[in-house]
Amino acid sequence: MSKFWNPLIEELEPYIPGEQLDDPSIIKLNTNENPFPPSPKVLTAIEEEAKTKLQLYPSPSVDELRKEIGSYYGLEKEQVFIGNGSDEVLALSFMTFFEPGKAIKYPDITYSFYPVYAKLYQLDVEEVALADDFTIPVQSFFHSEGGVIFPNPNAPTSLYLELESIEEILKNNRDQVVIIDEAYVDFAKSSAASLIDSYPNLLVVQTLSKSRSLAGLRVGMALGHPDLIEGLTRVKDSFNSYTIDRLAIVGAMEAFRDTAYFENTRQEIIATREYFRQELEKRDFYVLPSQANFVLASPVNIAAESLFTELKQAGFLIRYFNKPRLESYLRISIGTKEQMTKLLDAIDRITEK
Amino acid sequence: MSKFWNPLIEELEPYIPGEQLDDPSIIKLNTNENPFPPSPKVLTAIEEEAKTKLQLYPSPSVDELRKEIGSYYGLEKEQVFIGNGSDEVLALSFMTFFEPGKAIKYPDITYSFYPVYAKLYQLDVEEVALADDFTIPVQSFFHSEGGVIFPNPNAPTSLYLELESIEEILKNNRDQVVIIDEAYVDFAKSSAASLIDSYPNLLVVQTLSKSRSLAGLRVGMALGHPDLIEGLTRVKDSFNSYTIDRLAIVGAMEAFRDTAYFENTRQEIIATREYFRQELEKRDFYVLPSQANFVLASPVNIAAESLFTELKQAGFLIRYFNKPRLESYLRISIGTKEQMTKLLDAIDRITEK
Repeated sequence: MSKFWNPLIEELEPYIPGEQLDDPSIIKLNTNENPFPPSPKVLTAIEEEAKTKLQLYPSPSVDELRKEIGSYYGLEKEQVFIGNGSDEVLALSFMTFFEPGKAIKYPDITYSFYPVYAKLYQLDVEEVALADDFTIPVQSFFHSEGGVIFPNPNAPTSLYLELESIEEILKNNRDQVVIIDEAYVDFAKSSAASLIDSYPNLLVVQTLSKSRSLAGLRVGMALGHPDLIEGLTRVKDSFNSYTIDRLAIVGAMEAFRDTAYFENTRQEIIATREYFRQELEKRDFYVLPSQANFVLASPVNIAAESLFTELKQAGFLIRYFNKPRLESYLRISIGTKEQMTKLLDAIDRITEK
Repeated sequence: MSKFWNPLIEELEPYIPGEQLDDPSIIKLNTNENPFPPSPKVLTAIEEEAKTKLQLYPSPSVDELRKEIGSYYGLEKEQVFIGNGSDEVLALSFMTFFEPGKAIKYPDITYSFYPVYAKLYQLDVEEVALADDFTIPVQSFFHSEGGVIFPNPNAPTSLYLELESIEEILKNNRDQVVIIDEAYVDFAKSSAASLIDSYPNLLVVQTLSKSRSLAGLRVGMALGHPDLIEGLTRVKDSFNSYTIDRLAIVGAMEAFRDTAYFENTRQEIIATREYFRQELEKRDFYVLPSQANFVLASPVNIAAESLFTELKQAGFLIRYFNKPRLESYLRISIGTKEQMTKLLDAIDRITEK
């Protein structure tokens, strides 16, 4: 604690992201990145923009990208907000739609940035316990005092909630904002974006870091009623006018335009996930039915933490959460089929010792 | 106002940046951008990084860039914080070092984002009136309740305050943070970064958007005592882990490494500024003695607002602030010598009509 800090700063418990190692000999399956590079058209657009425009500010309103993303979802530009990764979009959303004294609801097992934001903005929280099978207890999210947020698919459980259930939650929170954090939705059945025109209290948050292979560029977005987008824009323009740089804007545009590349890569990841899940089940792991680009799995005959440590020594980085209810699980990102086969071989070597 | 907004949102008065038009026929001298592109080495580094790394998250701690910038100023990495443009650095600094109920001081004529941040964080403010000649009244910044912030050179006045005066302000605010916002310092005499080891209450904020030709990339930084940097880092990691994308990191590294290119371009801008100032004075404009990459000038025989409007019609974008004490002034960014000559010709045509 420094005497120069606002007293709030001492109380913060900052988010700790998965390790980012630049060692190419390590197989990195710990932060749910995409094993494929972005579309080659993304690179061409970035090179072109870099040649002549870097000394000029980007567009503060990011209109062209908002139009492009809007048209993908059948929405107007006024229904699309762009931020510096979905983390910034979430941070601004907590500030815009939630307020101290009115408890918000999120699951007890969920994205670990939510409690960090809640502390930063001094919000009251009602943590809702997931069911024993890690599914979302839908009715427990009804009638929130200050709003609702959860990921769909949830992280790190990987479980998807059907849109019918999300509609029930929306109908039973008419005066509160319900944020559906869809970081992984492109690996799942369908997006709640189709519900936006029916529910003015729905905010859908997405990212280009997972399914669109652009974790390195920092682009995320929110989709919702123009009133919600206007609120977010007011806060963003009171914080930082230009959060998305020129290269990120043109790269993101091409990532949305090249739909064929997007479809191919996401289908390949889904297929690899199903292959990997079956292989783990053959080895008697308990694997949750994932609709994300990762699986949450519990090994047999070895503690999850030991397997995590031994895999790290063998050159495989996955994620272990030392938290209640998750002690016996590992979160493993879906890489290429070749990477997953190597990981299975390593697991076999470790568990057969 | 939407019923879904936190009540604070309605009160915000978001910052309005200068117009960003993508029309290449317009000579754009309204947002203090650099007329030169960044070093060619910046482009090479960006192309190289984009080829293989975009699907991977960037470093959340940005250690390499912090080392590079630290070594330029003779500082340790622990004395350097990196943000998404200096606007984000300022936004996070207001949150970290200032608190409601303890009034902060800034000049009445200054960067217009400060009042926006103050409103966002509900801070009390004591605006200090600049002297009649627009200089900073040093003693009026002594003994602040909650902290001090001003740009040096100040914007939009373009005036530079000597380091001796900054030291006086630091000595008379031992228990408060004094933020010196040095967006334009590379066009001025010297940075307060040299004072960091002597004053643990000094935070120096800079940007790569002006002197390093990277407005399009969004990189800014804060330099200060490790305790101040740790506070900023705690807040940043409670808001958004990865605010600087991979291309911005490698581009910024090269912008700091290519010192020859940096020196050449900034000296050329300073020389053009002196040429332009003399030419305006020949035309009887009152021009403040600028140490920035812009001038604040008051025309004769024509109202500032009229000249602004007529120049816009003639294809020149400059900045007019419709604010008390600034009504008779125009802020003009320093472009290439060719651009400034064309602007002077246009001014002649308009004022001779």
